[in-house]
Amino acid sequence: MKADHSYAELITRSGEAATLASCSALLGWDEQTYMPHAGAEHRGRQMAALAGLHHEKATHPRIGELLGELEGSDLTADPESVSAVNVRELRRNFDRLTRLPRRLVEELARVTSIGQQEWVEARRLKDFGVLRPTLETIFALKRDEAACLRIGDDPYDSLLDEYEPGARGDALARLFGALRDGLVPIVAEILGAGRPSSSTVLNRDYPVDRQRIFGEAIAVAVGFDFRRGRLDTTAHPFCTMIGPGDCRITTRFDPRDLGDGVFGILHEVGHGLYDQGLDPAHFGTPMGEAVSLGVHESQSRLWENLVGRGRAFWSYAFPMARQVFHDVLHDVDADEFHRAVNLVEPSLVRVRADEVTYNLHVIIRFELERALLAGDLDVSELCGAWDDAYASVLGLRPPDDALGCLQDIHWSAGLVGYFPTYTLGNLYAAQLFDRFVADEGDPSGAFARGDFDPLLAWLRDRVHRHGRRYPPAQLIERATGSPLDHRPFLAALARKYGPLYGVRLAPAP
Amino acid sequence: MKADHSYAELITRSGEAATLASCSALLGWDEQTYMPHAGAEHRGRQMAALAGLHHEKATHPRIGELLGELEGSDLTADPESVSAVNVRELRRNFDRLTRLPRRLVEELARVTSIGQQEWVEARRLKDFGVLRPTLETIFALKRDEAACLRIGDDPYDSLLDEYEPGARGDALARLFGALRDGLVPIVAEILGAGRPSSSTVLNRDYPVDRQRIFGEAIAVAVGFDFRRGRLDTTAHPFCTMIGPGDCRITTRFDPRDLGDGVFGILHEVGHGLYDQGLDPAHFGTPMGEAVSLGVHESQSRLWENLVGRGRAFWSYAFPMARQVFHDVLHDVDADEFHRAVNLVEPSLVRVRADEVTYNLHVIIRFELERALLAGDLDVSELCGAWDDAYASVLGLRPPDDALGCLQDIHWSAGLVGYFPTYTLGNLYAAQLFDRFVADEGDPSGAFARGDFDPLLAWLRDRVHRHGRRYPPAQLIERATGSPLDHRPFLAALARKYGPLYGVRLAPAP
Repeated sequence: MKADHSYAELITRSGEAATLASCSALLGWDEQTYMPHAGAEHRGRQMAALAGLHHEKATHPRIGELLGELEGSDLTADPESVSAVNVRELRRNFDRLTRLPRRLVEELARVTSIGQQEWVEARRLKDFGVLRPTLETIFALKRDEAACLRIGDDPYDSLLDEYEPGARGDALARLFGALRDGLVPIVAEILGAGRPSSSTVLNRDYPVDRQRIFGEAIAVAVGFDFRRGRLDTTAHPFCTMIGPGDCRITTRFDPRDLGDGVFGILHEVGHGLYDQGLDPAHFGTPMGEAVSLGVHESQSRLWENLVGRGRAFWSYAFPMARQVFHDVLHDVDADEFHRAVNLVEPSLVRVRADEVTYNLHVIIRFELERALLAGDLDVSELCGAWDDAYASVLGLRPPDDALGCLQDIHWSAGLVGYFPTYTLGNLYAAQLFDRFVADEGDPSGAFARGDFDPLLAWLRDRVHRHGRRYPPAQLIERATGSPLDHRPFLAALARKYGPLYGVRLAPAP
Repeated sequence: MKADHSYAELITRSGEAATLASCSALLGWDEQTYMPHAGAEHRGRQMAALAGLHHEKATHPRIGELLGELEGSDLTADPESVSAVNVRELRRNFDRLTRLPRRLVEELARVTSIGQQEWVEARRLKDFGVLRPTLETIFALKRDEAACLRIGDDPYDSLLDEYEPGARGDALARLFGALRDGLVPIVAEILGAGRPSSSTVLNRDYPVDRQRIFGEAIAVAVGFDFRRGRLDTTAHPFCTMIGPGDCRITTRFDPRDLGDGVFGILHEVGHGLYDQGLDPAHFGTPMGEAVSLGVHESQSRLWENLVGRGRAFWSYAFPMARQVFHDVLHDVDADEFHRAVNLVEPSLVRVRADEVTYNLHVIIRFELERALLAGDLDVSELCGAWDDAYASVLGLRPPDDALGCLQDIHWSAGLVGYFPTYTLGNLYAAQLFDRFVADEGDPSGAFARGDFDPLLAWLRDRVHRHGRRYPPAQLIERATGSPLDHRPFLAALARKYGPLYGVRLAPAP
């Protein structure tokens, strides 16, 4: 009885903190979508106030007492029970938050706020020097953070663990090395085949209002529930869950690039389907939360790439695209359109990279941020190291810092250890999709009819409904029958791009 | 020195509470504009959490201590100084909030939340019976609230004082009686003149996208700053200030009623100009707040009616309207359009009432709510009393409850004592506008050129910048040179509607 009461109080406290966090989520969404420019300063004060109150609630000593009472009680005897999972994960959050001294948290908030403003200015001036001193401070503070957290074998693990619980830097380094070894010959073969004639099909005039109609139609088709969500436009697209019944995706439209809008929407819809698939009865507790950034990204990349850049999807969607954009596509057929959405071309900018070269961008960042954190690379040497890595890996040298090491906001915002989750998402997605096909058979016929329900139902069952019940590695292994592995991803590339480019791509080693 | 420190702490605490309230304001705005339907339940939890935290901050015992230290100190010696005003008004808020037992506050929140849902349902079914039991509870709780507050001579004063500090029920009853005596013969004369031929000009096909263009153009013209604000659509238009630099107005568009959109926008813009005219340096303190609902309404009604329904305004705006709506207005000229926007016609619904009959709707509600609160009228008798009042005052009997006593949400939301501020706003507006003309001369030429800057500058100087420095009655008397008076309003009606309807309207008694 005592444990039941303690558990009820713990869940109430967890819900209160989550409700405050959800207020911040709405304010953050508004800041990126509708807030008037002059509202920024006050929005900063609002966000800081809510963050402070949230921190107070989430680190309340009473939570530590309750966790102590519950650990070892009957409620945690079955480690997969709802109560055991919630206690385990709330302990993880509580320890992480209470190990960080308040002064460090506040200093990080202050410095990364400055860092993000300087990042905007540095990009404008194409001058990394504007950001450099603050970025040095940020990496020093992140080293302090890692020292307080003491997770894994090296400081990087402490940071990585926040985004991908249980992941470790050394293991990722080996995995990513093997992935790169597999990617390099694939890229070389594809580029050897020459640039296809379809390469400019997406860069015609696509009116934004029609793009919105088309985008909403495909979002509905794949299962995004607009009664429980919205789509708005923003500069840097994202998906945010405000609460049960309120999941918001954003996109941007470029009237000269259909890919930006369509694949941006499919990507964010993938995130949104995960959020909409979490159990609303568990909202406010770990059982109702997404398990990791890597698994979240697996959902967005699965719908964006494995569904949205597949031939079957365009059997369904291309006739609709021709109707919506009529004369713009009069000289194109579904096969050519499918080739156009799968153009492979080494480039300088990660967020616009194709499916084949994308992970090379991530691996460059992963290696640089590990070296920066370990002190093997100095922030003053970052630009040179970045440019050299691009020249060596992708054969391109950035013409300026804005197209080089200033292109992503992450480090200036203190997000160190975040990049690898993008590649984990790609690898998880390939494993999940393979398993879905193995379980349910070839989905091409259904996809070509616009029927994506079997895939969504499978993902709901294997991934979404579990919240944080299993750590991410275990969730993926349970869902797919195999541990994390780079080969399914490479094999999928070989299967798809070999025929598309008329080249022989060796199966993954 | 001690007092300086205490004052600084008081202002910090006031700012923290205001920041939390501003988060609620954004969540409320979102609820009425963009929130997906299924997000309503969680939104209720978010609002309750923020309200609870705000109440905790605003009633913190330390505030009482600080106020005690400051009252009688040098900082309050000059009663018009910023510090004295803030101490006086924070005392007023603190006493009001701490006099109400938490149980009563929570019970009112709970019951009025149910009341508003039942109100929607009762309107749908056109059956007051659905709401009646809860409305009885609400009036009983409001009596308890008044008994705790103990302001003025009778329970109604305690409630009224929240919305219009210093206003008293008995004085309003006398004022409103005189106003009604003046209005009745004006209405009779106008109706005797017959319905003008222009009466349907606003009820043509006005495409919503063009209405938005036109509405934004006039909002900019009168001075609304879109860098520091927004315009969105909603079911029940309102204006909300999120913080300095972020003031949001809302409207609704009816493709068959241009008046709904245009005058709705001018009305909310009037509110917005007040909010945008408050001193941002005082945000979070009484010196940075609007002084009362009545004064707020004076700003919206001044821009909506005294500017927006004036002939000079349409000298400027009608050519633009003809351009935006081209062929729709091909057979109309500015004079006829001006007559159309000043159609007088007794009606059943307050929010659509014309400028002449509007206050009669308010007076009916004022008398009914006073009688309900005093126990002279039972909630079970409300519908009958409402219908009789409409028949007697406006010559119309509601065909059902939805068009009768269920048309306003206020009582079901616990807003008792709120209605009279609408009429106070109309009276203040007439006094302010007269004084502006006396000070600055006839503005018709400037208005006809689309130059509204002199009026806005005058209002900024006389009203907006003062925040809560003066109680509303004193603010109006200082701004206009005269105490609150119904005669300027009646005189303005006589000056305008006499020529418009070709009747002789007696000057106000």
